[in-house]
Formats: sequence, structure tokens, C-alpha cells
Amino acid sequence: MKKRLPFNERLNALILKKSSFLCVGLDPDMEKIPAHLKYEKNPVDLFLREIVSATKDHVIAYKANLAFFECEGNNGLQALHNLASIIPQDILLILDGKRGDIENTATKYAHTYFDQMGAHAVTVNPYMGYDAVKPFIEYADKGTFVLALTSNRGSEDFQYLQIGTEPLFQYIAKRVQVWNKSNNCGLVVGARDIEELKILRRILPDMPFLIPGVGAQGGDLKQIMAYGRDRAGTGMLVNIGRSIIFAGTGKDFAKKVSEATRSYVNEMADMMHTSWDYIK
Amino acid sequence: MKKRLPFNERLNALILKKSSFLCVGLDPDMEKIPAHLKYEKNPVDLFLREIVSATKDHVIAYKANLAFFECEGNNGLQALHNLASIIPQDILLILDGKRGDIENTATKYAHTYFDQMGAHAVTVNPYMGYDAVKPFIEYADKGTFVLALTSNRGSEDFQYLQIGTEPLFQYIAKRVQVWNKSNNCGLVVGARDIEELKILRRILPDMPFLIPGVGAQGGDLKQIMAYGRDRAGTGMLVNIGRSIIFAGTGKDFAKKVSEATRSYVNEMADMMHTSWDYIK
Repeated sequence: MKKRLPFNERLNALILKKSSFLCVGLDPDMEKIPAHLKYEKNPVDLFLREIVSATKDHVIAYKANLAFFECEGNNGLQALHNLASIIPQDILLILDGKRGDIENTATKYAHTYFDQMGAHAVTVNPYMGYDAVKPFIEYADKGTFVLALTSNRGSEDFQYLQIGTEPLFQYIAKRVQVWNKSNNCGLVVGARDIEELKILRRILPDMPFLIPGVGAQGGDLKQIMAYGRDRAGTGMLVNIGRSIIFAGTGKDFAKKVSEATRSYVNEMADMMHTSWDYIK
Repeated sequence: MKKRLPFNERLNALILKKSSFLCVGLDPDMEKIPAHLKYEKNPVDLFLREIVSATKDHVIAYKANLAFFECEGNNGLQALHNLASIIPQDILLILDGKRGDIENTATKYAHTYFDQMGAHAVTVNPYMGYDAVKPFIEYADKGTFVLALTSNRGSEDFQYLQIGTEPLFQYIAKRVQVWNKSNNCGLVVGARDIEELKILRRILPDMPFLIPGVGAQGGDLKQIMAYGRDRAGTGMLVNIGRSIIFAGTGKDFAKKVSEATRSYVNEMADMMHTSWDYIK
């Protein structure tokens, strides 16, 4: 049997191979999908097949937002179970549910996402501490992205609280570093605050960052390219959701989606070799 | 149309009416259900119907742990959608998913749980701040229990961090008090640390507490009865899961479940009038 790479090694190898940092956010909001798909048997599934087909040449990962699947009942559940088989083998599937619960419950979530749904990685919430995260990171070839600094306004409510000399999200980030014995932990780091992104990167030069908040949420791709990568120039996924998957609404939506994707990836590739000087 | 009570008023009226604080935790772990049910068409659904039937005369609420439903695929989803109709009208359904995400995503979760699944309340994770909680508390007649202090060992990792002069969970509890404009917010307060339960009750004399950790997790019911209630003697749900729903494994399991339930409720009723002196 082929030895499985630790998740973070696999991620970084893919980034180097494709010269891309793009993670496409799959938030299949049925109110926003092209009208002609809405009357099909399973619009969620069909929409996602089209999105994957239009983007797959350029992406490192897909991040499926579980809320938008749960909301669609049986169709959503079916589409979620199909995702792993729709996505090409060299692309990662991240299930974004931000779960966090006591150990016996977290074990169930991990089993569902990794074993049943074939996810390669998940997002988790750290509030309940190590034993709520452990059942996920025990899968060494699977990735666990722990929320550190999120991209929403509410991130200011608790994540910046001072713990001694540092904000809570930095304290948590350092704990995740300690948990990262199998080289399969990462952090969710929002694109809203570039200064904080710089600090986290300085503290954790090798840990993968999953960075939401670009596109519809307004984060600056150029700055992220400059400051978000690890010291090998890899270790980063830039999640772009709505501004790719809802780039078109007509029957030609797949073409629009493909164009939007290429535009982002080209922008990343252009900056891949120039801007990285910033953090040296 | 009948005016809907704020959730917390409705909860407290039910507690007074039934002289019970019991919330039965529905964690339908298929490895632990009675063997004779495993070969039925939908064992999750059938098991839960039996549990509800055996316990309903004594409970204030059922708390369904979403991980155990997700894990069962279509059967789990079906059982979850059926729950609201299985449960009698004067009993509350709490969906325990501990969700927390950016506003557009939290809005989807709230819609799924409250509008589609007919839940009366949910649990949520506060780490992402107010806008991750707001879509839930905007349903004034529905309850939102925010994690403050949890019952697992990992609660020590972050929840006790000092924020100025108080631990993080107290700081969060006070924020939830500020969010509680519609009288529909509550807190999850684990049964592990009675001293902290006392402090929280002193700070927040009127807010409902959902208290997990009794039964399989070892919390002390007597102490909880003494220190967990609000100043009107209500405002508390004591969640007991595994030690009720898995009280029996044979064909007579429903009888065992019913006995275990009555034993807990009698214990509560006995203490209802005697022990409460402690907090006066």
C-alpha cells in the first residue's frame, strides 16, 4: 500500500505543481444559482457538477460550506456525498462546518466527513479545546483547519481579547502549533486584517493558512499573496466563493465562472514570483 | 393569531407546570441501540420514537445532537425531520449543533433548524462573535443557548483564560446578557465545575442555563439543583443523555428508559423545594 503523505505535505506539493493557491468556496445557495437549473431533479448536485467542471483545471481545493447543503435536505445530502467523486483526484475537498464538540461527538463528525464523505480536510472551532479537535487531527493524512482569526466583523468581539501580551487568536494559533504533531493542522485566517496576517505568519512560518474573505467579502488578494504564504512560498489556500460560483446567471454561466477563475489564478501566478520578496 | 411568548418565558412556564428540569439528550448512537432495532428500515427513527414515548411525561425538552444524525445519512436526516412531529406540543426541541459562522451562513443554519426542522432552540458557538449569533436570536420565540463553559476537559484550554479580571467564559456570558434583548438567549454551562456555576448564576440571575454533563459525564445533580436555578427557581435545563436513552439494551429497553427517567425526575422534584435555599 502506498504510504500516505501528511496532509500539509500533500497540500504544498499540489500548490507547487499547479502554481495556484485557489480554493473555490462551494456555497450552493439555491436563490442565486442560474434559473434554468432550478427545475432539475437535484439542482444542488447539477450546479456543483457544472462549477467543478468549469474550475477544476485551476484549483487546489474546494471548500464546501455545510450550511448550504443542510438547508437543501435530501438534495443537499446527496450532493454532498457525491462531491468527493465529482472532484478530480488531485484536488482537495474541504468540508467547512466549523464543528467543535465533546470528544465522542467530534469523533462522529470526523467519521462522517472523512470516512463517509471522503473529505480531505475540515474546518473546526477551537472554543471547546483540544479534545474537541483531537478526533479530527488523529487522521494524519487529513487536514484540520482551526479557526484563529475570522473574516467577519464579529471577529472583534472575542478573538482580539488580550490574553497576557497577545490577542486570543494568536494564543490559539500557538496552541494549534503544539497540536500539529502529525503535520496536518492549519489555521483559518481571515483576509480582513493584513497586519494580523503578517504577525501570524511570522509566528508560524510553516503552517498552512486557509484564507477566506477575498472576493465578495473584500479582502485584498495582492496583500494576501505578499504576506500569507509560508517560508517555502506555499502553505496557503485563498478561498474565493461567491465571486466565482455566481459569476454568471444565464445559460452560459459556466463560461463566466471559468473566466472569473482564470482571472484570479492568473493574478496569483503573476504575483507568485514578484511579491513574495515582501516577507523575506 | 396567538401572540408567541419569548422563548425564555415559555421555557420557565413549562418548568413550573411540570416540576421538572429534565432535558433528555438524543444521541442516537447506532452502536448502542437495542440489537433488535438495528435491522428495521430506519433504526434511528424507530429508536427515537420509542425513547420519546417512554420519557415524554417527564421532560421539558429533548436535545438532539446533530453529529449522531449526520452520521446516519438519509436515515438520520429523515429522523431529524420527523422529530418535531413525534415530540408532544408542550415539549421543546433543542437542536444541538454548536454552529457558528459568518452571517449569511448562520442565517442558513437558523432557517434550516427553526423553519424546516421545527426546532424551538439551538446551541451555538460564540467564537466568531455577535454576527454569527444574531441570525439565531432574531427568532424571538426561539431559544439560542450560547456555549459559555463546557463540560469536557478541553474547556480548560481556552475558556478559563483571564480577560482582565475574569475568565473568558464569564466575559462571554456577560456579552450574551447584552445580546438578550428579546429574552430568548441562554447559556450552556457544564456541570463539571460547581464553583463556576455558582459565579455565573450570581452574575446572571435570570438567564436560562442548559447544563450538560450529568449522568455518563459524572456531574452532581444535587449540586446543580442547588446552584443552577434562576432566582425564580426556574431557568434551568439539566441534560441527561446516555444514562437515560441507553438504560436498557433488550426488548424491554423502553421500560428501563422510563424507569431511569422517573428516577431522575423524582430526584429533581424532591430537591425542588428543599435545596434551593442554598442560593437565597
